[in-house]
Amino acid sequence: MVFSFLLIQARPGATIGGMCATRCSGSLAVRYGTMRDNVINLQVVLGNGEVIKTGSRARKSAAGYDLTRLIIGSEGTLGIITEVTLRLQKLPQHSVVAMCNFETIKDAADVAIKTMHSGVQVSRMELLDEVQIRAINLANEKSLPEVPTLMFEFIGTEAYSREQALLIQKIVSEHNGSDFVFVEESHAKEELWKIRKEALWACFAMAPNFEAMITDVCVPLSRLAECISKSKQELDASSLLCTVISHAGDGNFHTVILFDPHKEDHRREAERLNHLMVHTALSMEGTCTGEHGVGTGKMKYLEEEFGIGALRTMKRIKTALDPNNVMNPGKLIPPHVCI
Amino acid sequence: MVFSFLLIQARPGATIGGMCATRCSGSLAVRYGTMRDNVINLQVVLGNGEVIKTGSRARKSAAGYDLTRLIIGSEGTLGIITEVTLRLQKLPQHSVVAMCNFETIKDAADVAIKTMHSGVQVSRMELLDEVQIRAINLANEKSLPEVPTLMFEFIGTEAYSREQALLIQKIVSEHNGSDFVFVEESHAKEELWKIRKEALWACFAMAPNFEAMITDVCVPLSRLAECISKSKQELDASSLLCTVISHAGDGNFHTVILFDPHKEDHRREAERLNHLMVHTALSMEGTCTGEHGVGTGKMKYLEEEFGIGALRTMKRIKTALDPNNVMNPGKLIPPHVCI
Repeated sequence: MVFSFLLIQARPGATIGGMCATRCSGSLAVRYGTMRDNVINLQVVLGNGEVIKTGSRARKSAAGYDLTRLIIGSEGTLGIITEVTLRLQKLPQHSVVAMCNFETIKDAADVAIKTMHSGVQVSRMELLDEVQIRAINLANEKSLPEVPTLMFEFIGTEAYSREQALLIQKIVSEHNGSDFVFVEESHAKEELWKIRKEALWACFAMAPNFEAMITDVCVPLSRLAECISKSKQELDASSLLCTVISHAGDGNFHTVILFDPHKEDHRREAERLNHLMVHTALSMEGTCTGEHGVGTGKMKYLEEEFGIGALRTMKRIKTALDPNNVMNPGKLIPPHVCI
Repeated sequence: MVFSFLLIQARPGATIGGMCATRCSGSLAVRYGTMRDNVINLQVVLGNGEVIKTGSRARKSAAGYDLTRLIIGSEGTLGIITEVTLRLQKLPQHSVVAMCNFETIKDAADVAIKTMHSGVQVSRMELLDEVQIRAINLANEKSLPEVPTLMFEFIGTEAYSREQALLIQKIVSEHNGSDFVFVEESHAKEELWKIRKEALWACFAMAPNFEAMITDVCVPLSRLAECISKSKQELDASSLLCTVISHAGDGNFHTVILFDPHKEDHRREAERLNHLMVHTALSMEGTCTGEHGVGTGKMKYLEEEFGIGALRTMKRIKTALDPNNVMNPGKLIPPHVCI
């Protein structure tokens, strides 16, 4: 029996332990969940030197506190992950990759929402805005229509993947979508996904000496179209060049903000946009980070997201498990939180 | 857009809050996960009277400690759940229910394992042993073949549900399975599932004045056939009447041990069997409870399952969040564990 673990995060350089520590995910999370859902148990070294195993190897358990999930996403502040037991996923028998265009980003996001509500189980559904497509054209000498674009992957048996693609084609046509194409041949699929995979790097083709500030928010799926539209207005009005890439099925989206690191006003404008996006997401009951983590950069948003009581609870856990504060001190929990 | 939440626990009388507190699940967990996977956030009242919200309403988040999952399964020992935001699941377009028989319980369990490894996504896969089928026959005046039996539910589009059923029929025939039937008409499906739904109550038809001790363990899927076979040998050799019901796709199974509550030797024998089953599961890297919880009855197995370090970690969390020990005191964490 050959299984392959489908990496749910495509970012080059990511490690399994780091992926656990940041509760990371990626384009396949819409089908397979995040690291939260793909870890069976962990071995963790605590601040006092104790080595613990967070659970058994059973698929499910109702025994004890969920230490596995407590450590996942704790960003090294509770202990160091030294062993990970992963849940394996069967590689699908067949897949179909599809792509289509929209006049507005709202239409594209609406189709993403409708797709999720339809019960069709996509394995990926990625939204790219027209600026991102322009970057891809520039970087790869392509001539894709520079409009908001949705990409899909459907998996299962041959008949089923095709059946799902056709169901979505119908939804797309009902929402001002056009140019729906789908491919099944393995080389053609790779070519199509390459567009998405290289999206981030392609941005630098538009501004080779600039840096990218990548912000990541996630909102309830029903608010995605509204959140992206509102954010996009701000991004389009900015003097900086910004692209939008979204794991649309999860309500998660990223903005790549390109700025000149030597220019203070660029950096300030990037910060302002980041701030605006996070606040828009929080005002819609979303989170300040869907998959990138808190670190120090997003600590300042946690009180608005959780309330002080939940943060105090986190701090109490941190203090109980790491009383000497030797585990990644200064990260995740804002310094003003008292127990 | 009409959604319906598919209750993952069929036990009558269960409440949503209780289901969260015990990290409960049921036959649909193989497809939809347990309460761990179906809760977006919680409102919780802590021991100090503080009311906290455990997270945003986004489908995924990388912000902060996973307080939602920490509370789920904590059995009321960390706080009282006062509000639950659930994740909704779309009701499937179509479903097919299938049933088949086996000569041995090992064959049935092997088919369950093969089914999961095949990538076919069952929405339920339930195993009943020959004693359980006998009880069902007795209780309902049926004449089902009294042999180990597997029941399946496949969901999706019409074509897909049927396609999956046929794929599994092939696996069944390769593993000494027989009498594979599948039904699609709604009344016929209900009739078939009624068999499984009423399984527990049917047991009392064999011994009307007895009580049932229900034990629940869960092992890694690859060990299911071995664990069930080994447990079954002990159960068959006992003077008490025992049936086996398994959520086979999760590696989770229950034994219903019927005993006369007025007879001390019956109670002791039931305890002995429970103990044997738990130890068999733990020796196979399983858990002492897949979905029923710890309470006080299974506290004594936690050290073997987790090790003392993990239990100390749990106790530290309990003490930090509920220093006055007012939240369901005496439950879940064994009394000998010191921080």
